[in-house]
Amino acid sequence: MKGVFITLEGPEGSGKTTLISRLAQAAQGDFDEVLVTREPGDGPAGPSIRKVLLEGSSLDPWTETFLFLADRAQHCREVIRPALGRGALVLCDRFADSTLAYQGYARGLNIEVLRQLNDLATGEVRPDLTLLLDLDPAVGLNRLGAKDRLDQEPIEFHRAVREGFLAESRRDPGRYRVLDASLPADEVFQAALQEMRRLFEPTRL
Amino acid sequence: MKGVFITLEGPEGSGKTTLISRLAQAAQGDFDEVLVTREPGDGPAGPSIRKVLLEGSSLDPWTETFLFLADRAQHCREVIRPALGRGALVLCDRFADSTLAYQGYARGLNIEVLRQLNDLATGEVRPDLTLLLDLDPAVGLNRLGAKDRLDQEPIEFHRAVREGFLAESRRDPGRYRVLDASLPADEVFQAALQEMRRLFEPTRL
Repeated sequence: MKGVFITLEGPEGSGKTTLISRLAQAAQGDFDEVLVTREPGDGPAGPSIRKVLLEGSSLDPWTETFLFLADRAQHCREVIRPALGRGALVLCDRFADSTLAYQGYARGLNIEVLRQLNDLATGEVRPDLTLLLDLDPAVGLNRLGAKDRLDQEPIEFHRAVREGFLAESRRDPGRYRVLDASLPADEVFQAALQEMRRLFEPTRL
Repeated sequence: MKGVFITLEGPEGSGKTTLISRLAQAAQGDFDEVLVTREPGDGPAGPSIRKVLLEGSSLDPWTETFLFLADRAQHCREVIRPALGRGALVLCDRFADSTLAYQGYARGLNIEVLRQLNDLATGEVRPDLTLLLDLDPAVGLNRLGAKDRLDQEPIEFHRAVREGFLAESRRDPGRYRVLDASLPADEVFQAALQEMRRLFEPTRL
């Protein structure tokens, strides 16, 4: 793999979508190809899977998990891995860590099992950098207009998701950078940009 | 679980659909409730998942697997387990063994991993009896009219599926009964009926 793989994680309402497009724009000069993608839904079977996931009513936690994994496997094989093979910068809105935070920490499924399932789905493609947009869920949910099935979970669910992401960031500090998403969007962008650039040009001692 | 769970396995064109409805009819006197169901598709999220599975073009083998598992998890939770809890006879057209035969033996995914994934999806609900309608795939495919995505695989794929089912039947002879689906439908039905009745009324010595 010659490319660079950056994922953005964090709750809806944390500004991931805006940030990712600004980072993509800022990186145009550094890469011949910059790919912005997201999960669920940007794999070839993605739109149908996304529909089941976000519009369905009560899903069994394992059904939910397997659907995300199905989408991820196809997304990795047909979109992410080929792009990394071509040397692209891939910026992905949500990835394997979302499964750990939502289905593991918040829904209570076994996190070590979920790690293994992520590895099966991704073929062990792992992000070089994960930017976590950390935000009090009460603030994030307030920012949202239309809410999908997951957004409508009670606040305790979203608190468990947040704690899950933070726990994962402590577990893998080399890959994770936690950004305070309650700051003005410009400040968050500057911090994210600095982390991204650090990845392109390792510090020379 | 008070009910009885019987699954039918075997290739398309082996006569599962006809057989299952005849068995259901024959069992009406033995159970207050007889439920005929199938995978993929009879879970609540099933129709959408079935559509992706059977109509989609090239799916990653893990995507395919996770979609079947997603359907199975919901199907078990909302349909099969409640029916068994009510004491019903549940007759299911395809179940966990299909994942082993198609995605394991034929696609080459790790069979032990697939067994574990089946256990996650089913919550370890297992059939009391599995009737395998064994048939030369050349014969089965000839009987079919419209073919779905999986039916269109080359004949070697279907041969590997058949060998997979037979290998599983040897591994679990207490649960599996292999029926010769090339025999006239009436003979297959009589053989299946005998196996089913044996399950309702254990031999008294």
